[in-house]
Amino acid sequence: MSEHILEEVEAKNNVSIVLFSGDLDKVLAAFIIATGAAASGMQVNIFFTFWGLAALRKDGPGAKKKSFIGKLFGMMLPKGAKKLALSQMNMAGMGTAMIKGVMRGQKVASLPELMEIALELGVHMHPCEMSMNLMGLKKEELLTGIEESVGVATYIAQASASHMTLFI
Amino acid sequence: MSEHILEEVEAKNNVSIVLFSGDLDKVLAAFIIATGAAASGMQVNIFFTFWGLAALRKDGPGAKKKSFIGKLFGMMLPKGAKKLALSQMNMAGMGTAMIKGVMRGQKVASLPELMEIALELGVHMHPCEMSMNLMGLKKEELLTGIEESVGVATYIAQASASHMTLFI
Amino acid sequence: MSEHILEEVEAKNNVSIVLFSGDLDKVLAAFIIATGAAASGMQVNIFFTFWGLAALRKDGPGAKKKSFIGKLFGMMLPKGAKKLALSQMNMAGMGTAMIKGVMRGQKVASLPELMEIALELGVHMHPCEMSMNLMGLKKEELLTGIEESVGVATYIAQASASHMTLFI
Repeated sequence: MSEHILEEVEAKNNVSIVLFSGDLDKVLAAFIIATGAAASGMQVNIFFTFWGLAALRKDGPGAKKKSFIGKLFGMMLPKGAKKLALSQMNMAGMGTAMIKGVMRGQKVASLPELMEIALELGVHMHPCEMSMNLMGLKKEELLTGIEESVGVATYIAQASASHMTLFI
Repeated sequence: MSEHILEEVEAKNNVSIVLFSGDLDKVLAAFIIATGAAASGMQVNIFFTFWGLAALRKDGPGAKKKSFIGKLFGMMLPKGAKKLALSQMNMAGMGTAMIKGVMRGQKVASLPELMEIALELGVHMHPCEMSMNLMGLKKEELLTGIEESVGVATYIAQASASHMTLFI
Repeated sequence: MSEHILEEVEAKNNVSIVLFSGDLDKVLAAFIIATGAAASGMQVNIFFTFWGLAALRKDGPGAKKKSFIGKLFGMMLPKGAKKLALSQMNMAGMGTAMIKGVMRGQKVASLPELMEIALELGVHMHPCEMSMNLMGLKKEELLTGIEESVGVATYIAQASASHMTLFI
């Protein structure tokens, strides 16, 4: 039994986040928590699923040889962290631009900067395999530095070894 | 104290999910996590509250003797897992139909199938008593196989004995 | 090691909630969970961030000497718990009014009442410092009884000492 206790005590330092949302404000919240936790020495895993995958997209042309559905999703899903919009008060982009301006004015890190800091701090970012397949996204369309895509079993294993579990 | 530790270690294998949302994509995410956790031997409790109750509705005529408010909610709330729509890109049903088509094409289980698998794997589904009262929903309007409706005290007891706690 | 175990066992009685949403239904869910947990003897911390801050606003005139952006947010963000709207079926306020009527009819506590109960039960409510700065909100514009504004490091410390962690 002593081994189990040891494992449990160590789990205290792990954070597991499902990032389901692709809204700028929620993705910002996720990365503020992730970098804050990593900075205080916790191990952080973010599992990007459904709309959350948008934050991981590279700007530029999509992969070749995409299915019709893949091309359709490619057009509809925002291309990366710079293109995300607020969940509320977006107002055709005006609200989103305003928030970004305020953040710059107050020297708060932007989302692309927070994501770089997260990578430097060793935050693990896993795209969800099933979501990538459903949306026809290819590995080469995602940012460099993120991990291999994983399935739900890997998420469950990480989350059940984590003290903090969040669905954002 | 040793008993407390034992309890804590066992809690590692419990998952507690509040399913607040009635959006197809979020309910899918909840059931993919729930079945994945149950398949790996964890005990899973889902507490259906507010819009999440829609996923538990049976198709067919509503209960008799409903209040006016109950009838109104009965008309507005989707009637079960097959009627739920995406939180984004629903596009008057086209986006939702497209996603379902892609899931079928890739042999991903549909939401009604996932819910059946969850029941077979022993996932506990509890409707929230207060939400049912507020919406005027009757027990006979919900799917068979789900548990009795419970209050917040039961949810708290289950969640505080769980290692993974999610609000979806 | 025994000290670590003790800490872990005690963490079982803590709940940490990030309240990101300002939708009436989600804020209600957060306070039903918070008061339920506090009533059963758990220590509860709610961290109000982004739109969630709206629930903490006092009614009445805003602070003087606000920036232009602060005045803009002041106009757009609902002024306190009584002004929040449903995330769905708001229908220009009709759905929200209907739900409030049903709650009164069934003697369910309203959100302002739940928030008072939460304070009486010792639930700790922390406004997020960064969000307050971004929105130009001043301390004197928030309800009395809530704690000082805190940063992400404080949230992480509380959450990593909690058994239940939720993002709402």
